[in-house]
Amino acid sequence: MAQGMTLVEKIIARAAGRSSVRAGEIVTVDIDLAFAHDSSGPRRWAPMLEELGVGLWDPDRVAIVSDHYVPAVDAESASILKFTRDFAAAHGVKNFFDMVGICHLVLPEHGLIRPGAVIAGGDSHTPMAGAFGTYAAGYGATDMAAIVATGRTWLSVPKTIRIEWRGAFADGVAAKDVMLFLCRELGLDNAFKAVEYAGPTVEAMGMAERLVLCNMAAELGCETGVVAPDAVTFDYLREIGAPVEDEAGALALASDADARYAARHTFDASALEPQIAAPHSPDRTLPVSGHQGVKIDQAYIGACVGAKIEDLRMAARVLKGRKVAPGTRLLIAPASARTTTEASADGTLHALTQAGAILLPSGCGACAGMGAGLLAEGETCISSTNRNFKGRMGAKSANVYLGSPYSVAAAAVAGHITDPRAMLEGVAP
Amino acid sequence: MAQGMTLVEKIIARAAGRSSVRAGEIVTVDIDLAFAHDSSGPRRWAPMLEELGVGLWDPDRVAIVSDHYVPAVDAESASILKFTRDFAAAHGVKNFFDMVGICHLVLPEHGLIRPGAVIAGGDSHTPMAGAFGTYAAGYGATDMAAIVATGRTWLSVPKTIRIEWRGAFADGVAAKDVMLFLCRELGLDNAFKAVEYAGPTVEAMGMAERLVLCNMAAELGCETGVVAPDAVTFDYLREIGAPVEDEAGALALASDADARYAARHTFDASALEPQIAAPHSPDRTLPVSGHQGVKIDQAYIGACVGAKIEDLRMAARVLKGRKVAPGTRLLIAPASARTTTEASADGTLHALTQAGAILLPSGCGACAGMGAGLLAEGETCISSTNRNFKGRMGAKSANVYLGSPYSVAAAAVAGHITDPRAMLEGVAP
Repeated sequence: MAQGMTLVEKIIARAAGRSSVRAGEIVTVDIDLAFAHDSSGPRRWAPMLEELGVGLWDPDRVAIVSDHYVPAVDAESASILKFTRDFAAAHGVKNFFDMVGICHLVLPEHGLIRPGAVIAGGDSHTPMAGAFGTYAAGYGATDMAAIVATGRTWLSVPKTIRIEWRGAFADGVAAKDVMLFLCRELGLDNAFKAVEYAGPTVEAMGMAERLVLCNMAAELGCETGVVAPDAVTFDYLREIGAPVEDEAGALALASDADARYAARHTFDASALEPQIAAPHSPDRTLPVSGHQGVKIDQAYIGACVGAKIEDLRMAARVLKGRKVAPGTRLLIAPASARTTTEASADGTLHALTQAGAILLPSGCGACAGMGAGLLAEGETCISSTNRNFKGRMGAKSANVYLGSPYSVAAAAVAGHITDPRAMLEGVAP
Repeated sequence: MAQGMTLVEKIIARAAGRSSVRAGEIVTVDIDLAFAHDSSGPRRWAPMLEELGVGLWDPDRVAIVSDHYVPAVDAESASILKFTRDFAAAHGVKNFFDMVGICHLVLPEHGLIRPGAVIAGGDSHTPMAGAFGTYAAGYGATDMAAIVATGRTWLSVPKTIRIEWRGAFADGVAAKDVMLFLCRELGLDNAFKAVEYAGPTVEAMGMAERLVLCNMAAELGCETGVVAPDAVTFDYLREIGAPVEDEAGALALASDADARYAARHTFDASALEPQIAAPHSPDRTLPVSGHQGVKIDQAYIGACVGAKIEDLRMAARVLKGRKVAPGTRLLIAPASARTTTEASADGTLHALTQAGAILLPSGCGACAGMGAGLLAEGETCISSTNRNFKGRMGAKSANVYLGSPYSVAAAAVAGHITDPRAMLEGVAP
């Protein structure tokens, strides 16, 4: 009997038109969806496509999301947005999303991420789409130009690291804590590998939390992160009105029992404390008690990984009836326009602004170092974003700590890093 | 019997310690409140105060509001905000408002604008505070530094232009239309004069609309704009919890029947159509029908004059149940954090975001050409802000039209300039 395959191998095999592939093989795959944003997309592609004398291989399989230079803060960023708009119109890209949120959230919100797909994205956090059981990897502008011109690319089939979680998290512990913990446990140097998240704890997670796991596969240095499609995946797709075409086929993508892994790890969710990464790397993580009392100038809830509606609700649970500490500012940049609409409907936004949170526009914002909420020299920030590299979020001497939305909200209330679990005692789920 | 005085003369006489003053006299007055923002304030004052070897004359009468470089979009703006924070702390300025909105709205929201006061502000739209029956004028940084060091300044008592309005506006016509109309009628060259708004229509206005009238005294080129304090003024003060110290004294500030004016004008509110100012000046105003059909890339609701909660509610009345037109974007920057909190509580924010509006942070933003929402070359915008000078809001070749929040919302829905009254038929007030 043939050797079993991993989830990642099965997805790639299908896209390569093969019955099986093995980690380490180099194969050519058909791309189901290629996307980029205003920074990495049209303005980079246009000169290369022009030189090649070609257009897009299939405008219906290319998505463009303006999320970096949004909203325009000067004539130059305004012109980049205009260039992006004009390119989308000229090439008939109907999946063009202009200033309505961050690509990695906007694409699933619009039903464009389907189980089993191979997705090429012009951004390092493309693996976020792996939460739907896709092979989603980030590419540089030159590779992306070739992909949108041909609809194909080569890849080296990655080995999979399988991470299983068992047990239930304490209230106040979230997928973000899982990833900060894993950044320390596995390190950031896992190139040419994929990471697969599994086990009862992951099966019990909603899509929002699975998206966090897969997003930060990028921080682990992995090619992609994946979760096997299951009823949670299909329920999400149905709820947003996306077609679920082949449920049995998607379920069959799950890793075989005898699949080969680069490594397997099992962790106990109930033992996980809130995790905080110290400046200037996501692997400088300690349980929150290890950073207790660090004074905070700015608390920031933003980015694809950390400002979905579920993240804002986590923050609102901590903040409701409380106030941001004097001398500390809490900035919140909802990850998408839909997030803001939902938060304005269910009382979340009111709880946040009532507590003193300052709303920023939806977009990559300060996480990408190009939007609102950047830091001055010597300032300290705690952030729900995914990376805290030196100078990424403003001045070079600024210090950025990473934590879950719970931890960021708790620090905003206390004025310093503190355990969010204490603020959730007696708070309704 | 002595010649009667105008409202402005009475306020100045009190501050000069005199029983009467006459337009044209040069007097020295005590300042009740001096304020500036992060752009015009501490970073400009600090070197001058240092050279003089003095501090603030009275930290309790100096207010500082960070509203221009908010939220920080680069390390430089972050450092200006930090400098402002540090200055406020070092000088014991307790009325320091950090990123919670635009100074001209934040100060009245916090009960700092009291009838009869003389107010010096480091911003051209300082006259907005005249809606409370104050003498509020804008000063450059050097004058402001002298004022915050001494608590006094000299001024030439201005002549008053008295503008009376009678009758009721049609639904869809607002104070903003009044001011665009007056910019055309009176022109922009009214230096050394004050403008007083009076008559039954103004008496029937709430504070929000009176603030618009006085704000755009700046566009008329006047030193200040004023409305006599009355029951509406006192009700507002009580509602926000500000003390009403001398109601009779404030009422007695009203212009005497025999006061002398530079000019008097009377207008019929019921005859006023929605007004739109064409690029690149607020006096290039025509009734909306004169600009019907001008295609819009961006609709912008923002600024002290045009993004108060009342302005957002005007827009929401137009937008509820409608959608922003494809190819057009609607950006909304609430004028203060309190505005956002109120809008999130009463359904306004939900109606706006549901329609496709994109929320921007509170602050001067694109109106001051330094925040989110700037325009690309050749783009066309309709804006609820107060000025549309060439290049102020982004690229030099961009075209900015000015209108009321009703007109901006209607243009966002239609994709072009159109009469908002048609969209309000059958819509509840």
